[in-house]
Parts: sequence; C-alpha cells; structure tokens
Amino acid sequence: MNVLLCGDFEDGERQAWQQALADAMPEARWWTLSEARAQPGDVQAAVVANPPPGSLQGLPALRLIQSLWAGVDRLLADSTLPADVPLARMVDPAMNAAMAETALWATLALQRDFFAYARQQRLGRWQQHAQRRADEWPVLVLGLGEMGRAVARALRAAGFPVSGWSRRAGAELPGVQCLQGDAALWRALARSRTLINLLPLTARTAGLLDARLFAALPRGAGVVNLARGRHVVDADLLAALDSGHVGHAVLDVYHHEPLPASHPFWSHERITLLPHVAAQTDARSAAVVAVANLRAARGGGEIQHRVDRQRGY
Amino acid sequence: MNVLLCGDFEDGERQAWQQALADAMPEARWWTLSEARAQPGDVQAAVVANPPPGSLQGLPALRLIQSLWAGVDRLLADSTLPADVPLARMVDPAMNAAMAETALWATLALQRDFFAYARQQRLGRWQQHAQRRADEWPVLVLGLGEMGRAVARALRAAGFPVSGWSRRAGAELPGVQCLQGDAALWRALARSRTLINLLPLTARTAGLLDARLFAALPRGAGVVNLARGRHVVDADLLAALDSGHVGHAVLDVYHHEPLPASHPFWSHERITLLPHVAAQTDARSAAVVAVANLRAARGGGEIQHRVDRQRGY
Repeated sequence: MNVLLCGDFEDGERQAWQQALADAMPEARWWTLSEARAQPGDVQAAVVANPPPGSLQGLPALRLIQSLWAGVDRLLADSTLPADVPLARMVDPAMNAAMAETALWATLALQRDFFAYARQQRLGRWQQHAQRRADEWPVLVLGLGEMGRAVARALRAAGFPVSGWSRRAGAELPGVQCLQGDAALWRALARSRTLINLLPLTARTAGLLDARLFAALPRGAGVVNLARGRHVVDADLLAALDSGHVGHAVLDVYHHEPLPASHPFWSHERITLLPHVAAQTDARSAAVVAVANLRAARGGGEIQHRVDRQRGY
Repeated sequence: MNVLLCGDFEDGERQAWQQALADAMPEARWWTLSEARAQPGDVQAAVVANPPPGSLQGLPALRLIQSLWAGVDRLLADSTLPADVPLARMVDPAMNAAMAETALWATLALQRDFFAYARQQRLGRWQQHAQRRADEWPVLVLGLGEMGRAVARALRAAGFPVSGWSRRAGAELPGVQCLQGDAALWRALARSRTLINLLPLTARTAGLLDARLFAALPRGAGVVNLARGRHVVDADLLAALDSGHVGHAVLDVYHHEPLPASHPFWSHERITLLPHVAAQTDARSAAVVAVANLRAARGGGEIQHRVDRQRGY
C-alpha cells in the first residue's frame, strides 16, 4: 500500500510518525508530497496532519484520508478536499487519557485554589483559604465526544458531580447527568463551579463562550477551554475575569497559535495558559489506530471514526 | 457530658468547631479552658487542636483526649499530657479525600509539566514539551496510614503505577505494590518519577528526606512533601533542586510555620509552595468522628484511632 504522509510537522516530527506507522504496518510505503505528485495514480491512502490546502486533490486511487489529529476543522476548510473519499479523524486512547488528566488537574486546581496559592507564593503571602469539597463542586463538560466522555468519567471518579452537555440527544454515561438542548445548557451553567469546553469547532459552536454564557455562570466560576480558540470571544473572557465574575481561566487554545506576544492573556494573573498541549496525539498508540483504518480501506472493511462533513466532525 | 474544647484556633475557628460539634452532640456542654479550670473535676473529655502545653493536666475525671488534627506530634511533645487517658487522633474522611486531591493535582502537574508551563507563561515563551504517559510515571508513596492509602488509591485510579512504603509490615492495597524495609525503599526510589511523603513525624522519620534519599531518585524526579516540615533537610533539598537532580518540589509543610519571609523556598522557581493546606480537617465530617469517640468514652465503648504513644502516632 502506498500512503501519502504529509502535514505541518515540526522538526523531527515527521520521522517519528513515519517510524511509528512503519512499526505498525511494515508492508506499506510512506510517501512524501513530492513523491505522491510524481506518481499520483499510485497513492492509495493519505495520513495527514493539517496538510497544505490542495495536497489531496488529483489522487484518483485515494481510498482513505486519515487525520492524525482529532480536530478536522482546518482540514474541512480546504475546499479542494476530495468529497467522495472517506475521511477519518483520530481517536487515540492515549490522547483521550491525556485530555482527562489535563481537565482533572485544572479542575482540582480551581476547586482547591491552587492557582490562587501560586499567586500568593509570588507575593510572599502565607494565607489559608477555606477548603472546598469535590462533592460540592459541580462541573459542566461541554461536548460528549470521545474526549468529553473521557473527561467526564475521570472527574466523576475523582468525586465531582458532573454534568455533560452535547448538541446531539442520547448520550449516556454512568454517574454523569447528560443534557441536551439550549434550555438545559443555561440551567446547568447556573449551578456549575467549573466549565470545561470540549466541543468540536463548527459554525454553531464558534463564539459560544461569550459574555452571555459567562454571565450565566455563578460568580467566581472557573472556565477551562481545551477545544479550540475560536470557541471563545477573547474580549468577553477578559471582561468577565476583570469584573471577577469568572474567577480564573485555564486556556490551551487560541484564535492564533502560537499566541502572539502582545496578547493580554499572557500576563493576566487570572489566566493559566498552556501552549496547546492539553492532549497531544501519542504517535505509538495513534499509529495503531491509523493503521487499522488503512487496512480496512485496503481490504474493504469498515472505516472507524468517519467524519460527517455536513456536521463538521 | 462536659467537654473541654481548646486549641490554637484562629479567629472564628473555635466558633465553627463548637457549632459543628454541638450539631453532632446537642446534649454536651463545650467548655473553654477557663471554664474547665474553674471546675476541673467535672471535665469528662477534651477535644483539642494543639492546645497550650499543660492544658490537660489536673483534670481527674478526664476519660478521652480527642485531637481534631491528624498529626499528634506537637501534642505528644507536651510532657504534662496525662499518660493514662486514651488519646485519639483525627481520621476524617473528608480530610483523606482532600489529601488525595492535593497529591493527585501535584502528581499530574509534575507528570504533564504544568509547573514548567507556568514558568514559561511568566517568560512569555510558547514551547511544547514531549507528553508523558501516566502508565509510564511510577509514583512512590511514603507512609500507608489512612492518608497514604487514600493517596495511593487515587493515583492508581488515575492510571499511575503506584508503590507504597511503610515501616510496618503487612500493608495491602489492591493494585498498589506495598513495600517494607530499608532495602525495598532504596530500590523503589531508583525507579520513581514522583515521591510523595505522608509519613508520621517520629524520631525515626525526621530528616529522612535528605541528600542521600534525593540522590537515590532518578534525575529530574519530583518531590512532594505533604506530611511535616521536619521530614525534609531543607538545605539538601535546595542543593538537589539547584543541581537539577530533583526537578521540582511541591511543599505544604515547613520547619517553622508560617514559613519565614526570608526562607529561600518562597522564591525558588522549582518549588511550588502551599501554606499548610494540603488537607484541612473538615469541621462537619470531623465533628461526627469526634462525637462517636466521645459517646464511646461516655458509654464504655471502644475508642477509634487511639494513638500508640510509644510509636508516636
């Protein structure tokens, strides 16, 4: 099988991916974009990580486009993406575990005031705050996809009351209050001490975390955005933090990445900023998942985690 | 029942305790130290939180001394403490849960480099680090008392390989490698990425976290002290951090508290400092535990969590 492997890899990253993929599928050949361009009729599948727009057109034998990343919003924005080729996003168990770790760390830090104690340390101030119990700290998870569910399960196991909200009906998760619809969202916001965003970025979810949503949270609530920067209206978040209505924010993703040096998020004392590391794809486990789909494409089996292009994820 | 309630309470703290205790035991009378001194023969029990030395002598009808704190090292240092009265330390389920939360937060932050990302934010530096998996991040818990066991269980549930070490033989905990003896300790240190101290402070454990112990850890390991300041040789920890052998330390307790403003821990960039808040006793749940012992003392029942004064905890 001839597989095009391309994307916006950093130094050494392509080599690591190719090694992990070759370990999982020794019989395949992993082509660069220029190799694929030289023999476009022989490319049978593509494994991609936000490839340059246009990379995937003119490949008549293409049977599968497998993303290495979980979010496919940038891929779908490429109008030249072949419409008739199955597209799969990455669902990596190690990445789900990493996302659950980040969400749990952020929630524990908000519940137990560890971000405030870090500020106190910088000021040399010894001051104890009242201790809050996990069972009295309701958390709302927006989005109940693979990652949202992993996060909700981990928070539940740690003793937090957890609600999960999704656009689609029918989600069920033991011990988690699963909600759907706008009215349920606004009621849940009012009783949540921490809000964690894990929604896919679509036309319906872009800008959802705005002044109106922040105002619906109780005063002092924490906001954790682990999904996409465009879910948040930055100016509204800054205003909510400055008024004290939102107590603290943990952000991993931004409208522009790397976050520009001049952006006020960098130095805001009530923002904890991560450089898009809440959950990185783990090459070892993701290669196994990608190769299972490549083999299904070759043998006519079922492709897992296919993207619904209308829905956007 | 006439119960002396005394200790080094801060403003309002005594009132909160008396309210929680009265809610749990409405039939009791809660005396101050001066009320007890006026009628010493009528004091039947004492509920104490590091009371002034000498407070508990000369009370002939005393049947129980119930500590509100888990650590009784300061109480036992009072040579006037009546030797023949049962002494119980506090085992508060909410406090155990809080300790597990703090240990989990610290371990996640060390594993996922969140302390390093916080330093990067202050420097305005966007840089992603390789993501480390919980199942490849062995944690060693020193001390398998109530709190050590709660911590080991929480870390195991979050996916970390956990070993637990205690002075006494016979500890068993599902999924946790329970170790005993010096040789096992030194072997376990060599393979641990995070060390969490929850030992009681005794003559045998004071100063255990010294240069020799730090040198036994792999380079870059994290050290988390949630027990007592005197477990750590401060100068040895600073030297191990400055050499890079210990990568980061999370400290909750100190030789002198509040930590003096001149102490180098405050401004060390590889130390995260908490003001003795890793696990505060929760008045609502601890009052229920204390009252169960008061009723046992009144009715001749069995006192729970009795301190072995020879052993020191």
